[in-house]
Amino acid sequence: MKDKSHHMDAETFRQNGYALVDWLADYQQNVADYPVLSQLKPGDIRNLLPPQLPQQGESFERIFEDFKEIILPGVTHWQSPNFFGYFPANNSAPSILGELLSAGLGVQGMLWLTSPACTELETHVLDWLADSLGLPETFKSSADGGGVIQDSASSATLCALLTARERVSRFDSKENGADSRFTAYCSDQTHSSMEKAMMIAGLGRQRLRKISTNESGAMIPESLAEQIRSDREQGLIPFFVCATVGTTSTLAIDPVPSIGQICQRERVWLHVDAAMAGTATICPEFRYLNDGLELADSYCFNPHKWMFTNFDCDCFYVADRFELVATLSVLPEYLRNRATDTGEVIDYRDWQIPLGRRFRSLKLWFVLRHYGTLGLQHHIREHIAWAVELERHINDHPQFELALPRSLNLVCFYHRKGDEFSKNILDTVNASGKLFVTHTVFGGHYCIRFCIGQTHTTLQHVMNAWQFICETAESLND
Amino acid sequence: MKDKSHHMDAETFRQNGYALVDWLADYQQNVADYPVLSQLKPGDIRNLLPPQLPQQGESFERIFEDFKEIILPGVTHWQSPNFFGYFPANNSAPSILGELLSAGLGVQGMLWLTSPACTELETHVLDWLADSLGLPETFKSSADGGGVIQDSASSATLCALLTARERVSRFDSKENGADSRFTAYCSDQTHSSMEKAMMIAGLGRQRLRKISTNESGAMIPESLAEQIRSDREQGLIPFFVCATVGTTSTLAIDPVPSIGQICQRERVWLHVDAAMAGTATICPEFRYLNDGLELADSYCFNPHKWMFTNFDCDCFYVADRFELVATLSVLPEYLRNRATDTGEVIDYRDWQIPLGRRFRSLKLWFVLRHYGTLGLQHHIREHIAWAVELERHINDHPQFELALPRSLNLVCFYHRKGDEFSKNILDTVNASGKLFVTHTVFGGHYCIRFCIGQTHTTLQHVMNAWQFICETAESLND
Repeated sequence: MKDKSHHMDAETFRQNGYALVDWLADYQQNVADYPVLSQLKPGDIRNLLPPQLPQQGESFERIFEDFKEIILPGVTHWQSPNFFGYFPANNSAPSILGELLSAGLGVQGMLWLTSPACTELETHVLDWLADSLGLPETFKSSADGGGVIQDSASSATLCALLTARERVSRFDSKENGADSRFTAYCSDQTHSSMEKAMMIAGLGRQRLRKISTNESGAMIPESLAEQIRSDREQGLIPFFVCATVGTTSTLAIDPVPSIGQICQRERVWLHVDAAMAGTATICPEFRYLNDGLELADSYCFNPHKWMFTNFDCDCFYVADRFELVATLSVLPEYLRNRATDTGEVIDYRDWQIPLGRRFRSLKLWFVLRHYGTLGLQHHIREHIAWAVELERHINDHPQFELALPRSLNLVCFYHRKGDEFSKNILDTVNASGKLFVTHTVFGGHYCIRFCIGQTHTTLQHVMNAWQFICETAESLND
Repeated sequence: MKDKSHHMDAETFRQNGYALVDWLADYQQNVADYPVLSQLKPGDIRNLLPPQLPQQGESFERIFEDFKEIILPGVTHWQSPNFFGYFPANNSAPSILGELLSAGLGVQGMLWLTSPACTELETHVLDWLADSLGLPETFKSSADGGGVIQDSASSATLCALLTARERVSRFDSKENGADSRFTAYCSDQTHSSMEKAMMIAGLGRQRLRKISTNESGAMIPESLAEQIRSDREQGLIPFFVCATVGTTSTLAIDPVPSIGQICQRERVWLHVDAAMAGTATICPEFRYLNDGLELADSYCFNPHKWMFTNFDCDCFYVADRFELVATLSVLPEYLRNRATDTGEVIDYRDWQIPLGRRFRSLKLWFVLRHYGTLGLQHHIREHIAWAVELERHINDHPQFELALPRSLNLVCFYHRKGDEFSKNILDTVNASGKLFVTHTVFGGHYCIRFCIGQTHTTLQHVMNAWQFICETAESLND
């Protein structure tokens, strides 16, 4: 029956949906055939797009053709098994299916009332993870804490910082503005989102102390204690420390137990950011990464990095949910309802920066149930074992040198011919499209960072990539 | 071939993908059969979920069964044609398909380099919309401005506020913290996200002046001018005004031309929030909603509300992208790359709070091309025509009264028997599951808000809903 509306009818949706599913099933199998890093130049995509939105609607077939012809060459294939850059954003079939279902339901989870399942599944699945990763009981909703899905670790850090700001000011900052004496601490290796959070929160990045790190890139707790002492002497008010379990540059592990003791003594909020590395604690042998977490006020890790869940999915935990809610809540009349008024329910709008939210726990639930604890452990262990293997090859190579010992699934190394040469290797391999690696500067060296965590990566991909890096170095040597 | 891994193989993904597409095709047709508002009580969902994540992975069939049996009854069906609450979050088949593709590609759009198409398509499509909605040229990327997709209008407001804070402080706030004299302005009807932004930004909500509104809920510009004058006299520093085109409560339209003139004279940032109403400007006859926008520094509207694009998709425009980037940028070594260093490209990480970002322009591109300008105009006009029809019925009814004249697709009304009675009607119709409406308090009355904008809504659904509201009032009268 012909619909007078301009909507896509159900049967057409079904056929186009099948076509997309087919394409994605193929994509998962042949993603290695694409150049990992898009080979286009700035403006190449825009030059192929018409200057105006069309007046008449177009067929989906035509749009999908344009996707394949125009858009796809401009995609950097994060899901390629040859993607070893940054941190992975690994994905999986159950996660994609969960996102599809969430998009189709199109619910808003801002309040419990606006879709109870969206809230309750999230609370429940984050409690599951707290148990499965061995997080402290205080982070569970059965205690005074609880978990929430944020878009990213950046937002989790910001929410933690804001709550700490309110705690130290006794909720005066949200009323009268931030106090310029509030001082926060991280290491010189902490993710840039910490600096951004200080700027956003109106505290200023000059009030962020970057504590020095040791030869592995981990924060030196004695320096932290000394800096806090000296700041207090100057009349400043230390209120927040961000410790990192797995820094962005080299996956260094800050000594959370010592940092936590300092925070307890100084009555300073401790946030622990384990964005990628946190996933490894699904394996008992890596549970040591949680040491000291019982001293933390908040914690986050990203299933969208290493737990086969497509972006965005950061799990953020607090030990005191009441403080978080008191920091972020504003209740206008149009959002009032009985469930909220009685206080029986969680309204996640008060746990985050934006008001609206998607049904993100659905994909995480799909992933966790599809893999189970054993499946997740299997893959995490493989990734780390392959990093061990790569590390061994680098150690055995006469020209390459480890910048520091491997940490979990990340290996950082450089070529003995120096920074320019290492950079040349990196640019050449990336330009080839055969693999993608990124860099960092550490210990005075320009280093190639090689991070193993993509869903479709196998040991063979790692070894081929290593081989190609060696060959590239050889050819540049000539 | 049996895979030793725990991943779902491509063929299984294909079959499960088909099953989900089938279910969603059916859902779009039979969503009206579900109770709109979930009928569950707090804890009902959690009570049905096992206490632990399973050790062994489970089949997708089983997970999907649990979705249907456990999760679905806890869903409030925002996509129901009988959903008239809050603002709509309308969705469409092309948008769902775009989200599926984006999830499958799983790219990170934080930098141009990390997926050039993700950045360039976004810039391009937001330029398309600037033209199609008749926004000022200054908001286009060909001028000094540009658009970016944010998760929500809340985040857009926060980014605007932060940039204004940096402008007035000459980029000192991000270094040394916010100045407690900075004062912002909105109306007493402005969305709560404005208060939240002031709290987050470290300025404090006491420094937010809520300007009084007229009988339609629109800001009184004379009161704004007077408040700014008086604040300056007290040594405060006015720096930001948020005007609303379509308030949350009653869809009131603030007089942007007058407000803009005040802002120009006072050198104060003007942000215009047209979260839902902005979509109407796709029709020339509603283009008047843009009056005064040429005086604005920033603007946003949400395709995820009324433009058939599933959440999240807020389009945020600035007239000066350099200020926005200077406000939010932090450049650590591991994010450096040649494209960024040369300044030839946009890195959207510097246009938003988080670092990571999805490929959200894909779904918006799908929607815009599927409908074309004419298709979008058709549906917007229908929704508004049906609101006109509903308004006529309310006017003709002896017991119901309009709280104020209809604005676009929103009608607010109450029962003459008073607030308790109106609230009773609302609770009763919502509890029936037959339709969902929300409330506001306006002009001293508890009002039923009836907003028409769901994709599958027809005039018949609106009339049935109205009929049921009348019948409910009758039955409660007895």
